[in-house]
Amino acid sequence: MSAKTASKKDQRYKPVTPEIVGELRRIVGERNVVIDEEKMEAYSHDETNAEEYGHMPEVVVLPTTTEQIAEIVKLANRELVPITPRGAGSGLSGGAIPTEGGILLTVERMNKMIELDVDNMVIVVEAGMVTNDLAQMVEEKKLFFAGYPMSLQSCYIGGNIAENAGGGKAVKYGVTGRYILGVELVTPTGDVLWLGGKLSKDVSGYDLKQLVVGSEGTLGIVTKAIIKLIGLPTASSDLLVLFKTPREAIDVVPTIMAKGIVPTSIEFMDQLSVQTSCAYLNESLPYEEAGAMLLLEVDGTNPDQVEADLIAIGELCEQHGAMEVYVAEDTTTKERIWSVRRNIAEAFKVYSPIQSLEDIVVPIASIPDVIPELERLSAEYGMKIPCYGHAGDGNLHATLVKDPDMDMKTWHKNEAACLRDLYALTTRLGGKISGEHGIGIKRKDYLKEVANPVELQLMEGIKRAWDPNNIMNPGKLFDLS
Amino acid sequence: MSAKTASKKDQRYKPVTPEIVGELRRIVGERNVVIDEEKMEAYSHDETNAEEYGHMPEVVVLPTTTEQIAEIVKLANRELVPITPRGAGSGLSGGAIPTEGGILLTVERMNKMIELDVDNMVIVVEAGMVTNDLAQMVEEKKLFFAGYPMSLQSCYIGGNIAENAGGGKAVKYGVTGRYILGVELVTPTGDVLWLGGKLSKDVSGYDLKQLVVGSEGTLGIVTKAIIKLIGLPTASSDLLVLFKTPREAIDVVPTIMAKGIVPTSIEFMDQLSVQTSCAYLNESLPYEEAGAMLLLEVDGTNPDQVEADLIAIGELCEQHGAMEVYVAEDTTTKERIWSVRRNIAEAFKVYSPIQSLEDIVVPIASIPDVIPELERLSAEYGMKIPCYGHAGDGNLHATLVKDPDMDMKTWHKNEAACLRDLYALTTRLGGKISGEHGIGIKRKDYLKEVANPVELQLMEGIKRAWDPNNIMNPGKLFDLS
Repeated sequence: MSAKTASKKDQRYKPVTPEIVGELRRIVGERNVVIDEEKMEAYSHDETNAEEYGHMPEVVVLPTTTEQIAEIVKLANRELVPITPRGAGSGLSGGAIPTEGGILLTVERMNKMIELDVDNMVIVVEAGMVTNDLAQMVEEKKLFFAGYPMSLQSCYIGGNIAENAGGGKAVKYGVTGRYILGVELVTPTGDVLWLGGKLSKDVSGYDLKQLVVGSEGTLGIVTKAIIKLIGLPTASSDLLVLFKTPREAIDVVPTIMAKGIVPTSIEFMDQLSVQTSCAYLNESLPYEEAGAMLLLEVDGTNPDQVEADLIAIGELCEQHGAMEVYVAEDTTTKERIWSVRRNIAEAFKVYSPIQSLEDIVVPIASIPDVIPELERLSAEYGMKIPCYGHAGDGNLHATLVKDPDMDMKTWHKNEAACLRDLYALTTRLGGKISGEHGIGIKRKDYLKEVANPVELQLMEGIKRAWDPNNIMNPGKLFDLS
Repeated sequence: MSAKTASKKDQRYKPVTPEIVGELRRIVGERNVVIDEEKMEAYSHDETNAEEYGHMPEVVVLPTTTEQIAEIVKLANRELVPITPRGAGSGLSGGAIPTEGGILLTVERMNKMIELDVDNMVIVVEAGMVTNDLAQMVEEKKLFFAGYPMSLQSCYIGGNIAENAGGGKAVKYGVTGRYILGVELVTPTGDVLWLGGKLSKDVSGYDLKQLVVGSEGTLGIVTKAIIKLIGLPTASSDLLVLFKTPREAIDVVPTIMAKGIVPTSIEFMDQLSVQTSCAYLNESLPYEEAGAMLLLEVDGTNPDQVEADLIAIGELCEQHGAMEVYVAEDTTTKERIWSVRRNIAEAFKVYSPIQSLEDIVVPIASIPDVIPELERLSAEYGMKIPCYGHAGDGNLHATLVKDPDMDMKTWHKNEAACLRDLYALTTRLGGKISGEHGIGIKRKDYLKEVANPVELQLMEGIKRAWDPNNIMNPGKLFDLS
């Protein structure tokens, strides 16, 4: 990995001087400041391509309290040094990359549980807690954090909040934001305040908490969160359903949901995704004939109800032209079919490590319109474009995969042109260019092309009002004009 | 009713001249402009006390298209005339009252259904549609709009969005905002744009749609909305459960929810509420011994599951000290017990028409701490304060009821002092002063006292950025400092 070294693009910002490093050491303690280049390298990229998007910070700080963060933010405002907040670095749009150098502020040493309040069915945690740790902690009390994303083994709850992360269970449970009842925020000017509370309803002024959720660290640093829990589902079952065409697969989705059945997951996989993943896993699903598959999960607390829902879904699929319906009630079969879904990205990485993992979102009924267009783009730009993802939400991981034989210059040119076409298509269908990964630096130029300019102006207005010096994660989502 | 006549409080604003009235007539047509005092009176108040909060507009306009609204807003900016947007006028915090005079803009003639899109499970409607009409329209297709409030017979969907209305089913289904996937907005400067879309997930920039929801018409006028529908529940059952004390009643709530059972409603009624309503209805619930009651509803698509949930809830209540558990499965019994809940406000109006209907929200486990404090306030200020409401959300309609013998001067003084104490208590318990009715003009001075000043500054920053002339529903939520 070779991240670009610190060269400030924006002339407003000042360099991090030895005096500033000294101040930071005073605030967080000597061992919580890193200036060694080699040690800082890990903080120069996220899960996007490091070559393309990486950028070195000038200093990394690892605060342990909210008060320290507030002091750092005030210092940054005084000295005009940009701050990039960072969670686990598992992001997919470059939101945690310090593109302007400056201070990289990681919350990794703020990972404590503050309170597990069973009576109010909430947990209060620091932003650096690994999402999976949170999930396990509450499971012991037979409670459930329903907002967790696919990457929960490594990601932090603070990052989930910053990106309003989605995941495989969002059809039934919604995304992260639904479970964030309150946040402790350090504002871009260094004030500390709580937004929301242990409350499911609140109309006492603008919903600033929900504005902060998904703002990619540009409106402040979330330091703690109050998270809503629900009862732990104790029963679940899965169905794998094969269809001749993507259209047939998708058409069944609203049919199921209109019956009042809300599956936990409705995952879609096109033929190319299934074939590649099966080949990689040496798995033998009868995919040859199937143009598309749906993987559905139902969960709940009553096994009879879960089974009744599953049977009803299976029947609806058969009535709507499914070729085969496989039920997976035991753990081994469940694992086998979910493994195909989970390994799609990995399987394509074996074929070619250079990819652009997308997460466009369209109205669910428009998913079938996307598939032939992807085939057209695939042919036009000489790359494979498998399509899979969260069909129940219209959120598709169309992924541009570089042909191993294509030279890098052509790839970059074709990737950009193909993304532009893909996003224009998405916009024409009434969709948006990101459903769960965010805009960050990877998509900000494209967002500018497809978004309504008034919408961008309204966003920029908020940013300017909250962050007059533009020091809080600048250059993410948009460049201030 | 005697609403105050137009006297602008803010010197920035200009009067509505005959020239401006002429311009408005040109924009919306002669018959969609009202300047007759008698006809305008109906637009001078909402469901708050007209004597106390009412204020006359200078002109009422009834636009029929989004384009007309945009033109009116541009005119208002040019002429520095304030605009107050209005739905059905069923609000409970004065949000639709033209406190600065100027233009009252009602969306009552924009009540068309644009599209019922069954494949995407959404309906697109104009803001002036009566919420109940919407609910009935989608019911024909076996679909359900789950966000509707108690006043759905009269309120408009636009008003529900402006206030982020709650209601009796929010425990299971959440509030209005969860179902608003997109809005067409006329911004405070007269631009028109769509925020969101037929999409359940979207992280392509700040969530401006959700910021507009609940902003009480201060950030623009919602003209159309894309509303998420779910499958119509076809089975429901109710339980009325009597407890010795409020604490016993409330303690059972998290116990139920932690089992993974999510009732549609969990309504709480204290002894005074039940007694007064029963006396009013000549109903004979065995309330004498009961210090509090819970009214629970369970719904779903599978009658067996509904019954299983109901039985489980009943058993949990009995294990937690319930005195009696009544099941209501037939329509007559259901109607009988819900009638007690619905008639509480009316019953107290018979006792005394002058009231302050509150909707504080606290962490659910803190509800029992509220009850003895209400008794203390009741004694201190010489008024009855029944408490009932949405226990599953911690949202309580503590209602200050004037003693018929108290003189108005004492009432006003005591009402203000009592509200101040009530809101301070709510804040101490980690709650907020409004869970579903909003701040409007009724609570803005109190909000200023209890809210974090930084939070108010952040709200004001957004308002200034979006509405530089402060012409869009000024003086609601807060006064710009």
